[in-house]
Amino acid sequence: MSKDLKIPLLLDFYGELLTEKQKNTIELYYNNDLSLGEISEHLDITRQGVRDSIKRGEKILYDMEDKLRLVSRFEKVNEKLEVIENSIKEIEKNNNKHIFSPELTKELIKIKQHINDINEII
Amino acid sequence: MSKDLKIPLLLDFYGELLTEKQKNTIELYYNNDLSLGEISEHLDITRQGVRDSIKRGEKILYDMEDKLRLVSRFEKVNEKLEVIENSIKEIEKNNNKHIFSPELTKELIKIKQHINDINEII
Repeated sequence: MSKDLKIPLLLDFYGELLTEKQKNTIELYYNNDLSLGEISEHLDITRQGVRDSIKRGEKILYDMEDKLRLVSRFEKVNEKLEVIENSIKEIEKNNNKHIFSPELTKELIKIKQHINDINEII
Repeated sequence: MSKDLKIPLLLDFYGELLTEKQKNTIELYYNNDLSLGEISEHLDITRQGVRDSIKRGEKILYDMEDKLRLVSRFEKVNEKLEVIENSIKEIEKNNNKHIFSPELTKELIKIKQHINDINEII
């Protein structure tokens, strides 16, 4: 059973729509990297039961993203934020050549702090 | 029937999970500001049918936000972006007092452009 690296992100967004069993099996399989056999033992369900639960959960996650596209929206925001962070770094690099006003330094710190906050939210 | 100003935002995020009828009635009621009677005439369904459809759709939207909290996540990001935009404005205001290097001006333009892009995505 191949692993789709997008699943942990989809789980973060839409996980609350899964049953407890689907969420647990997907978490153990993708985030804790347990094998189907290990999950089967850990949760005391058959290996086939684990596989079915993961497959059904994955399908719900894919269907949700197909309809809502929220992960893709967040990913686009992330790309833009990275560009902004790079711009800030460029500005700071130039700080070696020019002496910044205290106001500018203060605002740059504020911007960086808020970008960090956004990164934590999304 | 009172109007919840959050519904258009919830509709933007979770609208694809509604039936066509639920989506249409909610859009006409909230976004086009039509009365129940007008929607009833427009869609050729009873006034009570319109009301039921809106109520059922609203419930789905509320339930989704209750579980996923994605609108609230986006709103928090928006607040942070506003602070960043204000910081950029502060920096530009100081442009009157100090002369910026071309590099700084270039990066500031880039940052503003990417914040605009993010505002369009979310």
